[in-house]
Amino acid sequence: MEITQSTRMQQFITFMQRANQIAASTDLEPLLDQMLGLLMQVVQAPAGVVYLYEPEGDEQVLTVIRGDTTIRHLLGKHFAADRCLAGYVVRAGKPVFISDVTREPLWNQSIGALSGMGFRTAYCLPLLLQDQPLGAVEIFDLPLTVVDDPDDMTLVQLLCERLTIEIEKTRMLINARRRERRLQALVDIVSHITTTLDRDQLLERIMHHASQLLNVEATSIWLRDERTGDLVLQMATGKESRQLRGEEVRVPAGRGIIGYVTSKGERVLVNDVRNDSRFYRKIDQQSGFVTRSILCLPLRAPTIQLGSGAGVLPAKIIGGAQALNKRDGQSFSAEDVSLFETLASQAATVLQLAWLYERNSRLFLGIIKAVTGAIDLKDPYTRGHSQRVADFAVAIAREMGLSQEMLYHVRIGAILHDVGKIGVGDAILKKPEHLTNEEMGMMKLHPTYGVRLLHDADLEDLLREESSAMAQHHERLDGSGYPLGLKGDEISLIGRIVAVADAFDAMTSSRPYRPAMSLEQTFSILCSAGGTEYDAQCVEALVRAHAQGMIKTQAEREG
Amino acid sequence: MEITQSTRMQQFITFMQRANQIAASTDLEPLLDQMLGLLMQVVQAPAGVVYLYEPEGDEQVLTVIRGDTTIRHLLGKHFAADRCLAGYVVRAGKPVFISDVTREPLWNQSIGALSGMGFRTAYCLPLLLQDQPLGAVEIFDLPLTVVDDPDDMTLVQLLCERLTIEIEKTRMLINARRRERRLQALVDIVSHITTTLDRDQLLERIMHHASQLLNVEATSIWLRDERTGDLVLQMATGKESRQLRGEEVRVPAGRGIIGYVTSKGERVLVNDVRNDSRFYRKIDQQSGFVTRSILCLPLRAPTIQLGSGAGVLPAKIIGGAQALNKRDGQSFSAEDVSLFETLASQAATVLQLAWLYERNSRLFLGIIKAVTGAIDLKDPYTRGHSQRVADFAVAIAREMGLSQEMLYHVRIGAILHDVGKIGVGDAILKKPEHLTNEEMGMMKLHPTYGVRLLHDADLEDLLREESSAMAQHHERLDGSGYPLGLKGDEISLIGRIVAVADAFDAMTSSRPYRPAMSLEQTFSILCSAGGTEYDAQCVEALVRAHAQGMIKTQAEREG
Repeated sequence: MEITQSTRMQQFITFMQRANQIAASTDLEPLLDQMLGLLMQVVQAPAGVVYLYEPEGDEQVLTVIRGDTTIRHLLGKHFAADRCLAGYVVRAGKPVFISDVTREPLWNQSIGALSGMGFRTAYCLPLLLQDQPLGAVEIFDLPLTVVDDPDDMTLVQLLCERLTIEIEKTRMLINARRRERRLQALVDIVSHITTTLDRDQLLERIMHHASQLLNVEATSIWLRDERTGDLVLQMATGKESRQLRGEEVRVPAGRGIIGYVTSKGERVLVNDVRNDSRFYRKIDQQSGFVTRSILCLPLRAPTIQLGSGAGVLPAKIIGGAQALNKRDGQSFSAEDVSLFETLASQAATVLQLAWLYERNSRLFLGIIKAVTGAIDLKDPYTRGHSQRVADFAVAIAREMGLSQEMLYHVRIGAILHDVGKIGVGDAILKKPEHLTNEEMGMMKLHPTYGVRLLHDADLEDLLREESSAMAQHHERLDGSGYPLGLKGDEISLIGRIVAVADAFDAMTSSRPYRPAMSLEQTFSILCSAGGTEYDAQCVEALVRAHAQGMIKTQAEREG
Repeated sequence: MEITQSTRMQQFITFMQRANQIAASTDLEPLLDQMLGLLMQVVQAPAGVVYLYEPEGDEQVLTVIRGDTTIRHLLGKHFAADRCLAGYVVRAGKPVFISDVTREPLWNQSIGALSGMGFRTAYCLPLLLQDQPLGAVEIFDLPLTVVDDPDDMTLVQLLCERLTIEIEKTRMLINARRRERRLQALVDIVSHITTTLDRDQLLERIMHHASQLLNVEATSIWLRDERTGDLVLQMATGKESRQLRGEEVRVPAGRGIIGYVTSKGERVLVNDVRNDSRFYRKIDQQSGFVTRSILCLPLRAPTIQLGSGAGVLPAKIIGGAQALNKRDGQSFSAEDVSLFETLASQAATVLQLAWLYERNSRLFLGIIKAVTGAIDLKDPYTRGHSQRVADFAVAIAREMGLSQEMLYHVRIGAILHDVGKIGVGDAILKKPEHLTNEEMGMMKLHPTYGVRLLHDADLEDLLREESSAMAQHHERLDGSGYPLGLKGDEISLIGRIVAVADAFDAMTSSRPYRPAMSLEQTFSILCSAGGTEYDAQCVEALVRAHAQGMIKTQAEREG
């Protein structure tokens, strides 16, 4: 059939309009598929494929197949660029027409050998953007005459140029959006890990987020043992990680990739650990995990400004983080490295913050235990009293279902309840006999002294509950207590709890003027005074806590 | 000139090839400029412009001008879409040919009235992508015949379609990359603000980063006063912000936009505050700043897991953050809101962490000051001793140029230096006369008691320097001190510093058995013992610190 120039022109315009419609999409695969369809229409071919080039590995990936279903199983297959037709035309920089593919070695080495296609001719075009390979198009079983038609070949050429541009722009957009999505995930992760100072929870969050962000099979965090320099495994994720629980896993200083990374302060990326002599096989042997690829980074804590006149916590490498075995057979990319570095840096910062919090908590708790312990020691009969009262009070509070925060206040308040005794003379504290009325009057000042001590230290606002425990642990519901003779609701919950805990320890400890009471006797006294002197619910909670073995009297501990 | 069909075809192909070349770019303005050039070439026109449509404000923006230099000053100008030709063709959804622009009201209302162009004809084409307006092209002074040539019109139509697609894809890419860039900046900011627990430094970092990220003239942070509910300005940036320094700036609870935001927990975005009755003018009046637009967010601190058995710090709104006056006349975008929300959330988290650190520091420092103060009180003659020794020791250490961290250890160590006296009986501590040898032997145990107290509390590793101060503050360089009779280098720097500070306070305070020594006498004794008993550098530092008025003796304070 002879085609007139104006019909030609009309066809040409139609193809270009169709190309515009197709190019409006930013979905890469439908775009490739439809553009391939358009090319096949131009040259009246029944089948064709599109390859996309992957520079990493120098491979052509079979991305789109049209018109033939017998080779569907090859979709997604990677072909070495130097051993396939697509690679050949890209290197040649120009199209190639093959009149009999069965005689073409490059064809047979790649797609031909694997397919049951009955194609004979193939027209193969490179997709090049300013000499950069983006992929290739192969069109099969086209009429031989088409190749000799310069108009058709021009149109094919124009459409291939267009396809190249659309691939490049769509990939740029896909990449930018993927980076955007991953950065958004990273921002959320960085914010999320900052909201816990609980070390174990923090490690879990870091590991969990790292696995997801990097799409890896396993992750692990190692911290440096300050004394030996060894790396100690803190937490690991991945199916086999439970094999590593229970016993401590250590890598000696400088050994393995983790040792290298933390001592040199350099990251290590190994996409095949069989090629890396630093790899320390022992952990895999222990866990049964088979490490293929590793991205290992130092956990580099930055200088942290402390405020409150405490200067800085200096920058240092506190350990290392590993991501193992990128999923789906992929390698770690520069983008993975950058994301993991940011995550590791924030992880190191928050680990330091958690350590600081733990240190400060230990300092405060340690010093008040030490001081109140020293006060208790003044009277050999009250040795360990404050600590025991704290244990009892916390057990009561827990049994009453109070919140974790309230348990903490109860613990501190109970440890501190007698700190005011520091203002009572040794002569009274240590006196083995019963106190005179005047001496008892001095002794009864200790709750007031305690509160004044907090007040003078400007700590009343920070230790409001604790202050109440100190002030009220000798008050009684019926108003018979001291120093204020408060009644009923005037006494705070924490005051009632510590009162019961304090009385329980006093009764079950021996005194110079009387032996320790029996448990039966103690519970009987406390229960009968429940509702009059003591809060009945607190007494019941104490009885339950003791029955469950949660607390032990001095005699039970020492006996 | 008659053009043959095959020449036509050739031209057509050339234009399409050129369009492919132009479209390879992802730089929007050169791409628009070159595509406009191509369109002008098709219709043989001497000039043309491209408008881009901005949905926010419903405006057409004159983005590219070609071929005429007399209207260059209009570049970048915004035209209301309902009052210009570009807007008209977009709404009409089809091209318009105007044979005499001087008679066209829409032309005169917009570009015509402002330009000195001598154009008569204009061909105006909408750029629509699936009915969404992207902009418009106007081509001027084209030959009248061209409009009647269907091939040319088809080609123009094809190129406009192409242009529309390229604008859309390029904008998508530009937007994705801008979001990526801003997210990367946000990640860096979020990481950076987490590395300081110093409240003022933290506020400064938050404000600085917010200004940059959002491109605004001013920012401010307000925290809620727990007692009154008022919002108190913590820090502000912007030229006029220094007007707000010095005195406290408060907004009463619930007043103003900041009060609304923090009480309702909702963000407020006002692009023109004149239209918002909530706006609280008083602050502008105080500072001289003229607020136009506000983005105000609650500072919503999340629940923070504390670890160490302390439960959680509950989630709450701690205040609000404001960004004022987006620069370059822009409005706040949804993207701005999202970025500022993430920043504000992290800011609230780290402000809580800084508050926790400050609280824990205050707790520890407060309790050791209170306890050592109570011990000092046992002997009326040593009232305030530990605190004064701490002040002196820190002054010495500062004068010696020690680091902020060491100053902190010196302060804690000096406050604690006599804590071991808690283990020495009142009878000895309070005895007004000279002690017997046996009593002195008991007294000399206090450094050892102090160290044991830290040891029993398992705090030796956390308070290593402090422990050394407690152990060695009675050691002397020549070996004449106690408890170990250490010599020279065996005594730590902190031990030497606290020894001098302790001796200085003892000498300058009155005792039952002697009055306070004069300063001259004290310095003379200390200086002559410098190098034998005391570290000479420490003594010199003390003398310098006193000369500079950095420290005051008990007599100087009370006198």
